[in-house]
Amino acid sequence: MATASSHVPKVKLYGVPYSVCTSRVIMCLLEKQVGYDLQVVDIVKTQDHKKPEFLKLQPFGIIPVLQDKDFSVFESRAIIRYIARKHEGHGTPLYGTSEKDKAMVDQWLEVEAQNYNPAIAPAVWHLIHAPLFGQQGDPTVAKASIEKLEKVLDVYEGVLSQSKYLAGDFFSLADLSHLPFTQYLINDAKRGDIFDKRPHVKEWWKSISTRPTWIKHLSVAFPGKNFDSPGS
Amino acid sequence: MATASSHVPKVKLYGVPYSVCTSRVIMCLLEKQVGYDLQVVDIVKTQDHKKPEFLKLQPFGIIPVLQDKDFSVFESRAIIRYIARKHEGHGTPLYGTSEKDKAMVDQWLEVEAQNYNPAIAPAVWHLIHAPLFGQQGDPTVAKASIEKLEKVLDVYEGVLSQSKYLAGDFFSLADLSHLPFTQYLINDAKRGDIFDKRPHVKEWWKSISTRPTWIKHLSVAFPGKNFDSPGS
Repeated sequence: MATASSHVPKVKLYGVPYSVCTSRVIMCLLEKQVGYDLQVVDIVKTQDHKKPEFLKLQPFGIIPVLQDKDFSVFESRAIIRYIARKHEGHGTPLYGTSEKDKAMVDQWLEVEAQNYNPAIAPAVWHLIHAPLFGQQGDPTVAKASIEKLEKVLDVYEGVLSQSKYLAGDFFSLADLSHLPFTQYLINDAKRGDIFDKRPHVKEWWKSISTRPTWIKHLSVAFPGKNFDSPGS
Repeated sequence: MATASSHVPKVKLYGVPYSVCTSRVIMCLLEKQVGYDLQVVDIVKTQDHKKPEFLKLQPFGIIPVLQDKDFSVFESRAIIRYIARKHEGHGTPLYGTSEKDKAMVDQWLEVEAQNYNPAIAPAVWHLIHAPLFGQQGDPTVAKASIEKLEKVLDVYEGVLSQSKYLAGDFFSLADLSHLPFTQYLINDAKRGDIFDKRPHVKEWWKSISTRPTWIKHLSVAFPGKNFDSPGS
């Protein structure tokens, strides 16, 4: 599996396309038009991410890992920063074009990691993924998680009333990092309502979730699946 | 309160010197020799971080915030990246000197944020800080937290047997980000033993915690306090 055209030699990405963190990196590679070969790591049946060979690449035993010739890097938000910097002049300028832009991208990437992610992750787990792993989801935890997320979205609503995207008027690493978890909450848990009722958040979600790169990724990660209209 | 000499106009830092996230930024400013004025934000008695004026700077109501003339940025790990990039040619090269260095710094900064911090934070809260805020610490949570941290340190031991610091053979943003929480666990909770029993981790801690910048910061943040020898 790989992207089509590319201006540089392909990189190798270890992961699975339905994984949140792998999706973050794939989205970045597509926006930067960097070709890649996906090396699928079975994290369910054969648990390949816990095997000695993989642990040499990622000592904590988690996906994804990017290999660029003889150089390898892990942690999705470190990988996307590396790709955005290395291919600065190519594809979408995901880190912006100035030092201040970069600071704003880092700021919102940290907010995604420290505020948004911890709020949305338990909801997605308890509403959708737990049953897939033979566990029972806890609706009380999911409810608390959604309430926490709503508070984060209240802040986003204010920010997105001032600029089109989180870090300013340009689509960045910070925006794309929100796509994978949010699409699960909207399309699988059917909780688009909490985005819809905040007009600027709704516009933002519509803008980022309809990018051709994201639609392309979804069609590969979930072949044959129908997705709801953005934010609904 | 401010640093001595500086090659650029002072920045303004909103925070408190005993805060983990504020300390991360102060340590970076000291290493980059950037002068700063600390604007103390009372987060206990008057809760200034929740007041409208502060929320204009930081909509989530948390410290620290850095103000550099008319530009302001929040989230400690975004702030330190901004400082390291802006003052690249001055002071300690905290982001390394190549694209690969930067990727390794980001990778280990993410590990600190995603693995180390979630493991150590509950231990420090339940062993030390909870009673200061009128709450009772839970020793069971603290124990589980320490066990989680030990697993992270097992990985660090392997990495630090290959290079002097986390991102390579240079002191970086990734290393300094570990200082604030770790010093609480070693000096206040007296749990230096889990560092001491891993020889490469012990050496690393000794090396980073004896930097003159860190010793200077501790003397300002905790005046009159005696600190244990590193890692013991």
